[in-house]
Amino acid sequence: MKISARNSLPGTVKHIQKGATTAHVTIDVNGLTVTASITNESVEELGLREGSKVKAVIKSSDVMIAVD
Amino acid sequence: MKISARNSLPGTVKHIQKGATTAHVTIDVNGLTVTASITNESVEELGLREGSKVKAVIKSSDVMIAVD
Amino acid sequence: MKISARNSLPGTVKHIQKGATTAHVTIDVNGLTVTASITNESVEELGLREGSKVKAVIKSSDVMIAVD
Amino acid sequence: MKISARNSLPGTVKHIQKGATTAHVTIDVNGLTVTASITNESVEELGLREGSKVKAVIKSSDVMIAVD
Amino acid sequence: MKISARNSLPGTVKHIQKGATTAHVTIDVNGLTVTASITNESVEELGLREGSKVKAVIKSSDVMIAVD
Amino acid sequence: MKISARNSLPGTVKHIQKGATTAHVTIDVNGLTVTASITNESVEELGLREGSKVKAVIKSSDVMIAVD
Repeated sequence: MKISARNSLPGTVKHIQKGATTAHVTIDVNGLTVTASITNESVEELGLREGSKVKAVIKSSDVMIAVD
Repeated sequence: MKISARNSLPGTVKHIQKGATTAHVTIDVNGLTVTASITNESVEELGLREGSKVKAVIKSSDVMIAVD
Repeated sequence: MKISARNSLPGTVKHIQKGATTAHVTIDVNGLTVTASITNESVEELGLREGSKVKAVIKSSDVMIAVD
Repeated sequence: MKISARNSLPGTVKHIQKGATTAHVTIDVNGLTVTASITNESVEELGLREGSKVKAVIKSSDVMIAVD
Repeated sequence: MKISARNSLPGTVKHIQKGATTAHVTIDVNGLTVTASITNESVEELGLREGSKVKAVIKSSDVMIAVD
Repeated sequence: MKISARNSLPGTVKHIQKGATTAHVTIDVNGLTVTASITNESVEELGLREGSKVKAVIKSSDVMIAVD
């Protein structure tokens, strides 16, 4: 499956913290930590574990740019 | 300024492509290419050029996870 | 590829209208019209044409609910 | 009230699952299931029940397109 | 129509700048300027003009918080 | 730090309601109430309390416009 989101960053799941309905998943992407908030169902359906190989998928319109 | 968005990835601007109102900016983040769509005004106000040191700021709820 | 976005609605591309950097794509989903704004590059890379079989992918946090 | 979001899909609430602050609501839209994540307050204020007639409102910039 | 988005801020359109497919609309909200990017079609369908009375509608998950 | 998001509205934190992973923060912005949903970690890291001076940061593409 190819998707229109411009960013598809390969990485490895480091940690999964589940809430009542939403889970926070941290991913190691080339040495950087990226955090995703997804539903608990998605964690189950995607079979995510620590060490899972994943892609962090992000639309370009959801990426902001900051300068110091 | 500190912001609630969980992801603030340091990188360098590689290319800026302007449209009528929206610009596509590609950023090198630790060897990966991240694309942002921001307004032309933002490009001017942030003084973005190729080589600018920036942060790619992304809310955790805007990061999806995909598995092959 | 499986993705954490909860909504993946099968449909057929009806029309593609390109702007300077952003394209508006209308999709027939079970008789309803769904409109997506994606980058022109995505239209090319996904090889979208009128009649293309696609999925409209939407995060659950991006779906609002309205009542009359 | 008319809104700038391009997608306003009529449907019927099938199920509501509440978390600590966020609720997942599944909606039958022309035979397809659409999932929304909204706040528990919104569920109350909109008076949502199973069987409620609603609209799933989605901005075009929040709709991605995927192809197999 | 009532909508699940938690923020519905009343204001007046100050300026409309159209691009190829996307328009930038600035709104005076209680003395503050809020900028929206919506499609050109939405500007037409909502009949927006300078001076139009509108609501700026924003999901709570789209509001970030920053501190100096 | 300057950021590409077009809206940066100064205000004061009125109330913080924490869930399992997500917190709802209401902010007084020029007499209007704006609600943000951010992670509990962000509340801690930003040191948010009732009375904190903050900015509500919102991308222009996340602002919809409604008319009655």
